[in-house]
Amino acid sequence: MTLRISEIFGPTIQGEGALIGVPTVFVRAGGCDYRCVWCDSLHAVDSAYRRDWAPMTPDAIWAEVKRLSSGQPLVVSISGGNPAIQDFGPLIALGRAEGYGFACETQGSVARDWFADLDTLVLSPKPPSSYQVVDWAAFDACLAAAGLGPQVGMKIVIFDEADYLWAREVAERYPDLPLYLQPGNPEVDPDRPVDLTAALARLEGLIDRVTADGWFRPRVLPQLHMLVWGNKRGV
Amino acid sequence: MTLRISEIFGPTIQGEGALIGVPTVFVRAGGCDYRCVWCDSLHAVDSAYRRDWAPMTPDAIWAEVKRLSSGQPLVVSISGGNPAIQDFGPLIALGRAEGYGFACETQGSVARDWFADLDTLVLSPKPPSSYQVVDWAAFDACLAAAGLGPQVGMKIVIFDEADYLWAREVAERYPDLPLYLQPGNPEVDPDRPVDLTAALARLEGLIDRVTADGWFRPRVLPQLHMLVWGNKRGV
Repeated sequence: MTLRISEIFGPTIQGEGALIGVPTVFVRAGGCDYRCVWCDSLHAVDSAYRRDWAPMTPDAIWAEVKRLSSGQPLVVSISGGNPAIQDFGPLIALGRAEGYGFACETQGSVARDWFADLDTLVLSPKPPSSYQVVDWAAFDACLAAAGLGPQVGMKIVIFDEADYLWAREVAERYPDLPLYLQPGNPEVDPDRPVDLTAALARLEGLIDRVTADGWFRPRVLPQLHMLVWGNKRGV
Repeated sequence: MTLRISEIFGPTIQGEGALIGVPTVFVRAGGCDYRCVWCDSLHAVDSAYRRDWAPMTPDAIWAEVKRLSSGQPLVVSISGGNPAIQDFGPLIALGRAEGYGFACETQGSVARDWFADLDTLVLSPKPPSSYQVVDWAAFDACLAAAGLGPQVGMKIVIFDEADYLWAREVAERYPDLPLYLQPGNPEVDPDRPVDLTAALARLEGLIDRVTADGWFRPRVLPQLHMLVWGNKRGV
């Protein structure tokens, strides 16, 4: 059995969401059932890049994670694309046996049994600006699949007022999930430097919006990797 | 009974450490038993600013927190200066009765019974570059005072290699405490803009140091408020 892998890199830190700042090695899966118009990881989504996705066995992925982390256990972040369209159960089993932790980020469109074996599951339903339509039955199936296994959080990217209002509704629907808001990043060209001042102004705008609203539930966080490394890959 | 208060402001987000990104109102106490050479809050430390510290009763502080938060419960962050040189127990009791949470950050030089009433206690022992000397017996007394009440974390600011090596030793001494590392900020003049590129380069350097070392325990986080607002006060 092989998995389509876009890239394996690290150790670096998790740049966003529940595990912000945590040292990690990323395993980025190739392939996605979504086509968000502002996707910042198209190289792991668009099948035009399919030839860049290596077919790797769980053993081969695991060997690379161990090499990168020098055999020192840490949290492995499974991302994509949408990693849930593939079976990461065997990889997780290999890593857990050696004391590594596992986090996964997915939009919540496909439920998997192996969600229950994670330490952290971040579900990031895509807001209206993505031009995707969330299947809430599938999202609920993801929560059910995770069960009491991992810590589950919900992360929502906010590009505009419609996204913000949508996030407020979605938050009400899941009152018990830890919630993370992140300003959307419209600058996704890996060959152009990010405008730091603009990126931080977007963070400030989102902080202002939430606090002016008296909405004190979400954590508001940037994408640290984007601030530090721009859209450079492999960090 | 009155407390010396340097400023009360918010709602904004907590910019650093365990609660990074969490909406909060800050209550900044005036007065400190330390004089870190790189202190970024001298206006709440140096007695030259003492006339700016309002003597306020817990009731008056509480009324201001409620006004700022429009009566919507959130996490109140008690900072300073060193808030532990004063008695914040009555303020915490007032707030908890109305559903607010409380976090406190202190260097860990003075233990207080009211630590046990917090939701989050961040102890930030000061590294060698501060030119302060940590009293570990006092630090341990802080941990004992907190007991099983709050979530306790340890945050260490890193200015240089000596600080980093010190942090590694201190971390070994407290293997069970969640650990947060933060690059030191040498630009603390409130009237000068922060050099973002330099600030992010310091973050990158600390990430590189930790990951190259294979030290995967600490979370490495910036000061978000400094990135967004520089050294401006009241945000």
